[in-house]
Amino acid sequence: MTPEQFRQAGHQLIDWIADYLDGGVERWPVTSPVQPGEVRAQLPAHPPAIADGFDPLMADIEQIIVPGLTQWQHPNFFAYFPANTSYPAVLGDLLAAGLGTQGMNWVTSPACTELETLLMDWMLELLDLPEKFRSTSARGGGVIHGSASEATLTSILAARWRATDGAVNVDGDTSRLVAYCTAQSHSSIEKGLRIAGVGTSQIRVVDHDDAFAMDPGALANTIDADLAAGLKPFWVCATAGTTSSLAFDPVAAIAAVARPHGVWVHVDAAMAGVAGLVPELRWVNDGVEHADSYCTDPHKWMGINFDCDLFWVADRTALLGALSILPEYLRSQAGETGSAIDYRDWQVPLGRRFRALKLWFALRLDGIGAIQEHFRRNVADAQTLAQWVADDPRFQIVGSHRLNLVCIAHADGDQATDALIDAANATRQTMLTRTLLNGRSVIRISIGGRATHEHHVRQTWQLLQSLA
Amino acid sequence: MTPEQFRQAGHQLIDWIADYLDGGVERWPVTSPVQPGEVRAQLPAHPPAIADGFDPLMADIEQIIVPGLTQWQHPNFFAYFPANTSYPAVLGDLLAAGLGTQGMNWVTSPACTELETLLMDWMLELLDLPEKFRSTSARGGGVIHGSASEATLTSILAARWRATDGAVNVDGDTSRLVAYCTAQSHSSIEKGLRIAGVGTSQIRVVDHDDAFAMDPGALANTIDADLAAGLKPFWVCATAGTTSSLAFDPVAAIAAVARPHGVWVHVDAAMAGVAGLVPELRWVNDGVEHADSYCTDPHKWMGINFDCDLFWVADRTALLGALSILPEYLRSQAGETGSAIDYRDWQVPLGRRFRALKLWFALRLDGIGAIQEHFRRNVADAQTLAQWVADDPRFQIVGSHRLNLVCIAHADGDQATDALIDAANATRQTMLTRTLLNGRSVIRISIGGRATHEHHVRQTWQLLQSLA
Repeated sequence: MTPEQFRQAGHQLIDWIADYLDGGVERWPVTSPVQPGEVRAQLPAHPPAIADGFDPLMADIEQIIVPGLTQWQHPNFFAYFPANTSYPAVLGDLLAAGLGTQGMNWVTSPACTELETLLMDWMLELLDLPEKFRSTSARGGGVIHGSASEATLTSILAARWRATDGAVNVDGDTSRLVAYCTAQSHSSIEKGLRIAGVGTSQIRVVDHDDAFAMDPGALANTIDADLAAGLKPFWVCATAGTTSSLAFDPVAAIAAVARPHGVWVHVDAAMAGVAGLVPELRWVNDGVEHADSYCTDPHKWMGINFDCDLFWVADRTALLGALSILPEYLRSQAGETGSAIDYRDWQVPLGRRFRALKLWFALRLDGIGAIQEHFRRNVADAQTLAQWVADDPRFQIVGSHRLNLVCIAHADGDQATDALIDAANATRQTMLTRTLLNGRSVIRISIGGRATHEHHVRQTWQLLQSLA
Repeated sequence: MTPEQFRQAGHQLIDWIADYLDGGVERWPVTSPVQPGEVRAQLPAHPPAIADGFDPLMADIEQIIVPGLTQWQHPNFFAYFPANTSYPAVLGDLLAAGLGTQGMNWVTSPACTELETLLMDWMLELLDLPEKFRSTSARGGGVIHGSASEATLTSILAARWRATDGAVNVDGDTSRLVAYCTAQSHSSIEKGLRIAGVGTSQIRVVDHDDAFAMDPGALANTIDADLAAGLKPFWVCATAGTTSSLAFDPVAAIAAVARPHGVWVHVDAAMAGVAGLVPELRWVNDGVEHADSYCTDPHKWMGINFDCDLFWVADRTALLGALSILPEYLRSQAGETGSAIDYRDWQVPLGRRFRALKLWFALRLDGIGAIQEHFRRNVADAQTLAQWVADDPRFQIVGSHRLNLVCIAHADGDQATDALIDAANATRQTMLTRTLLNGRSVIRISIGGRATHEHHVRQTWQLLQSLA
């Protein structure tokens, strides 16, 4: 491909994306009718022997790829969580791809590291997070990870290092370590613990209350029992916005129980923490000042296209202790004198892209005001939906709905609820996810799309009513 | 940012990238003269209150960001490893950002999963890898990871699961496990093992020969000693192209020693495996038919901008056993009937971008021929450089140089070599990395840039001669 062909194809693709995000996505249903294997069957079984042009490629994208996708940017997408993209973030990612920067160490691209550190401090201010996380604080700091799963894993590794005084790096001994979460915690908690050598027999699933929030009293009892058994409680996950129902664990109360025993408190605010960008929603991060680590995902609701997870620690010593390895070919003066941050030691992989660009582009080109307006609109629409549901006796609201997620059930029970989800999803005009709350089947309606407005919510609600 | 503003800014940015990659990068020195903190000091300490325009942003990029980068796309970049980008791959990544697809499960975007599976099979054919890795084989398959570090970690986790019959998921017990590598193995090996609860006391650094390749006899002796001590040898890493010197461990001989004892053989071909795209360089993957898992990085030499690591396993059972967790909100019929692949269970994170697009774009728009020509040119230039070095008595070649890396030392010893690297890098007209080989200081000259031609190599060589 020549530079000239790139310019031409690039302009064409930019225009295609503009059309797609500006309503064009609605040319396709929210979900694809393809069956397993159908996309692949439409493509050549073997790689092309010679280069092709851009037009046939775009034709395949239009005719095979996009029709085979779930349209996460569709205004009627209410499933899982929002995974918004935005015009500025797309451009930031484009620039990162073009520059081909490797930011594993400061010296491998100083501006990549420094813009990231600055953006973490900017986001700390915008979210009103505690000063102890700021990069210029005595011991804290932040980094952009690819996902909350990775943030959680690094938090576990840092806690594991601290709980063993670093011995785990040598002896790998995790046999006495015990971790705490609830049944509402994200699957990445168990996965991260498992990876770190903390198996299910070392994970305590602490009781939660009727609002699906961890019971600190139950946590205290469990920790006491583990201590009495000679075990070492080392890590607890408090979720600020659970996946199933956007429940909020009481971070301060959890920390009050856990920290006196040296337990690392991690706040998983992957879903909802970014709501703290809106002053009146800042309660989502209540208690975070008591946390040892915290993460939230701009790549969900905020419109910074995946991947962009923000992770802060109050004391980077344990993190660096857990993850630093310095081979000869990566030594640098800047890294070893401590005058610069080498982010490779803050994460699982070595290589790293210039992820700060897309966040920077969004904050400068859309501005915080546009993001706040988007969040406020989604929350208001969720409250409106909740009112509609409350007014229809065939439905019940399950859990709280303080933010942008409403969980509802059919009054006739699980079978009716499940049938309703299946029927609604079968229309492909909406996408909804099922979950279980206290053993009860519910429909999650997650309202977070950048293109989603009240009339989209109303359409899906009317669809559910008509199918009920 | 409006769709119209996006179109305009997008076209401008596409043109900027075309200029940058078409020689514009040479407007800047290979490395930046900035000192730690200097980039950040030029940017506002606090986030902007209101949205800004694209022109001021591009001005900051031109005047602050790019001058503060290490130019990995510069033709005179000979450090670390190539991290090439390419026109088609940039476009593929752009489309992935615009679509905002989440490919964690088949059902969350069927085409994302199916194109990835197809591309893994295409690459298997292009690299002539064993059929046991093919997605349509009885038990094998492939996945795109973000980095070789993650591929290595998942390989370790799969091996850990197999060696403990899955018990590790419950009891977290890794105390008897022992892993094997050499002093030339990548730092991600120790890091991945450490994360998985296999500390340095459980890692055996096996002797290598004068060509920096693992000694299979030494491996056999070490395994025997561990077995005699009641330990459980579980994983060995054979490197196909070490970072320091592009040495190749003898995969077949290692497997012959290790596999009878149930040891998982992982081949880390991150650096050089893609060279197998060129028929006469296919020897880089010799012995891979004996491996349990294998990875290579198109995001290095091949020009698929980071991140794109290809990872194959011969038996996905252990991988899925190690990484599967199925919460209620992620259940799907397609996933549970086994009719579709849910790639979330093949990797550490849950979320995943549509990485296959950039690889597909490159294979279709540049074509395999252009990639082969690029590899052949780099290898030929490395051989030419080696000849020049051999003709100059002030220099010595260290290690072999069969591919695109030449390691050289000053005949006067380490002090002279180190001074030479520092002097060459201080010109900022080139970037070279130092490493230690058998305790000897050497200059690595890694020739892998897509824009790098013989005259660039000659310039750096003449610079070294003039400074020697």
